[in-house]
Amino acid sequence: MSENTSSDRDAVHEVARAAREAAVTLRALRRSQKDAAVLAIADALDAATDRVVAANAVDVARAVENGTDPAIVDRLTLTPDRLHAIADAARDVAALPDPVGEVVRGYALPNGLDVRQVRVPLGVVGMIYEARPNVTVDAAVLCLKSGNASLLRGSSSAYGTNVVLVEVMREALVAAGLPADAIALVPGTTHESVKHLMTARGLVDVLIPRGGAGLIRSVVEESTVPVIETGVGNCHVYVDAAADLDKAVAILVNAKTQRVSVCNTAETFLVHADVADAFLPRALSALRDKGVTIHGDARMAPYAEAAGIAFAPVTDEDWAAEYYSLDIAAGVVEDLDAALTHIRRWSSGHTEAIVSDSASAIQAFITGVDSAAVMVNASTRFTDGAEFGFGAEIGISTQKLHARGPMGLAELTSTTYVVTGDGHVRG
Amino acid sequence: MSENTSSDRDAVHEVARAAREAAVTLRALRRSQKDAAVLAIADALDAATDRVVAANAVDVARAVENGTDPAIVDRLTLTPDRLHAIADAARDVAALPDPVGEVVRGYALPNGLDVRQVRVPLGVVGMIYEARPNVTVDAAVLCLKSGNASLLRGSSSAYGTNVVLVEVMREALVAAGLPADAIALVPGTTHESVKHLMTARGLVDVLIPRGGAGLIRSVVEESTVPVIETGVGNCHVYVDAAADLDKAVAILVNAKTQRVSVCNTAETFLVHADVADAFLPRALSALRDKGVTIHGDARMAPYAEAAGIAFAPVTDEDWAAEYYSLDIAAGVVEDLDAALTHIRRWSSGHTEAIVSDSASAIQAFITGVDSAAVMVNASTRFTDGAEFGFGAEIGISTQKLHARGPMGLAELTSTTYVVTGDGHVRG
Repeated sequence: MSENTSSDRDAVHEVARAAREAAVTLRALRRSQKDAAVLAIADALDAATDRVVAANAVDVARAVENGTDPAIVDRLTLTPDRLHAIADAARDVAALPDPVGEVVRGYALPNGLDVRQVRVPLGVVGMIYEARPNVTVDAAVLCLKSGNASLLRGSSSAYGTNVVLVEVMREALVAAGLPADAIALVPGTTHESVKHLMTARGLVDVLIPRGGAGLIRSVVEESTVPVIETGVGNCHVYVDAAADLDKAVAILVNAKTQRVSVCNTAETFLVHADVADAFLPRALSALRDKGVTIHGDARMAPYAEAAGIAFAPVTDEDWAAEYYSLDIAAGVVEDLDAALTHIRRWSSGHTEAIVSDSASAIQAFITGVDSAAVMVNASTRFTDGAEFGFGAEIGISTQKLHARGPMGLAELTSTTYVVTGDGHVRG
Repeated sequence: MSENTSSDRDAVHEVARAAREAAVTLRALRRSQKDAAVLAIADALDAATDRVVAANAVDVARAVENGTDPAIVDRLTLTPDRLHAIADAARDVAALPDPVGEVVRGYALPNGLDVRQVRVPLGVVGMIYEARPNVTVDAAVLCLKSGNASLLRGSSSAYGTNVVLVEVMREALVAAGLPADAIALVPGTTHESVKHLMTARGLVDVLIPRGGAGLIRSVVEESTVPVIETGVGNCHVYVDAAADLDKAVAILVNAKTQRVSVCNTAETFLVHADVADAFLPRALSALRDKGVTIHGDARMAPYAEAAGIAFAPVTDEDWAAEYYSLDIAAGVVEDLDAALTHIRRWSSGHTEAIVSDSASAIQAFITGVDSAAVMVNASTRFTDGAEFGFGAEIGISTQKLHARGPMGLAELTSTTYVVTGDGHVRG
């Protein structure tokens, strides 16, 4: 077994080394070359529809046989329409501006040195993700557009699909005159193969895990390669004493129920005691009509009973929960400070919303929470790369270093200082 | 022993938790409040000169008794003049702009949502560093100015000095109306206390190690808290076929000898074969006059002999070395590509310089290396926060995520997206 492990590691690291070589070529490409390759990938995916769908059918059949949750089977499934939509999304990426070469800062020093901080590719980006095979293409294309080689490690349940998707993309790269190794699947379906990727320090520049909290935690804890944490969301809606209650009801219902299985869905709401009487009957009725269950504190209980909404006493597990379901934790707070204290304690640092018409309350809320995004009189559901106008999104970072919030192409770059002199030496 | 370890951990984590509390206050401070606190610290350090110097004398005496390298004893030593210079450096930091609140991006979406990406403090910054006690004050003040609490963990040899420096700074914070816990020394002088800091995930937002390669590697490998790697420098000077040789000699001599013990010193030079005959006799004579030893390849040997400079055959250890001494690895390369291949293999990613008058060679060099800084016709010694005009520097990052190159106040911040609507919900 230790021999297998060591040869598995060699296999993963060999793929990473090849990606590293390819990244040298990618760094030097012009936008037109990258766009041509991305469009070639889109066309190749459309042309390979039958091949991809056939491979996917095998993965799907196995998942069904294994009794996989139907929602996960659905995420795993690629129809011709879905594959075409994936190819079109790649075409959209080709149309986005190239982040590489952007001068982030530029100025002349008193001694005449010219300093420019210029965006450059990160190099080799490792993606670790779960069932959805669209991520295989999305990630590869975003990395390619930003001049990065990608190492893709999807879930084992989608392995057969991903093998074919990556084959098709690599063929398209070669046809476009680029190295195939710019896009690669991490070989193997065991947890060991993920480990070998996480310890490929010096070969892989960054790992981006996308998926559930357990996956992300294990990558963060075990990886010696730098990691960008993504997408764990315990988002809060705070309804202030000075809230417009019509807006508050609409925002709360939207934040909880518009799509429950995503990270920017609200998982807790807090209401200022002064407006509990006016707000809660309306809000709880509206949530009840959407089939929501309230996990509420003692002050919430009588309102829930009056509204006839499903209710359970709230626990610490509820305050911490990312339900990804029609459940929401709920409490009445004495004031804004109590709401801030609660949010600082329980939030995962993704998105918090305040509904208020008070400028001072809004300012205190913005300063008092420490999250990737703060929504002022808007639904938490807006924290999203497409909504923010990024055109594409590789994930939503909930960490503070490098990138925070939705990550687009610019977040897949680093920078280099280019300093130009004329024989300058330091005195 | 396991009991001690656990109570040590509790002690470190308790300090981290107190810093986290203080960080909530720091986030909300105006520039004027932070500047007043920084100036109060500077004044308090000046007023406490006798107390600090007395504590330092004890650390210095012990270091001498232990037979510590005189260069390290020198770095450890605080004279009244040096302490005054440290206080003045803090006053300079007070004069710098506040990075917090800067709007990095701001725009309106088609649906009317107003999006602003705003700089915010990171939160709690842990610094792990070696003997120099000036880092204790520099780091604390840069963190305070950028709204961060700092957890300081200097070398055990400076512990007594650091205890007093931190006491003085905390007294000044309290006098300025701020929480003392905004600046704290990590308790303990054992390696275990560093470990407890490195595993304080959720309490500490980032660790910045400053020191030798061994220290930095151990932090990178053992920490579960995100790390910014700093300052390991194996910098290269490449003398191109189209170089102005006067400038090339001046830049090489400056890059190697102007100050040998720092990370932006050149440790290798490569010369294009076409100019070896014209360049090397002059360059090697100039280096010989500065007392440099060449670790050269076979083609370098006859030139070295002719110039009468100390010479040893180069090894892989030399190509990888950060000498921090009057040694330099050296080779003759066939062309620019060979230089780039060499640099990509051996560089630590800090700074590479090209000396050339060829625009195409310069462009190929900039694209072909992957380092924090590229110097074009300028000495590697310019990669420095003060030289770049940042006014202050917490370290030089050699990693690609978050910050790369000299890190000033802006690099001690994260961002938050503040999105303002008027009851906006997602459709």
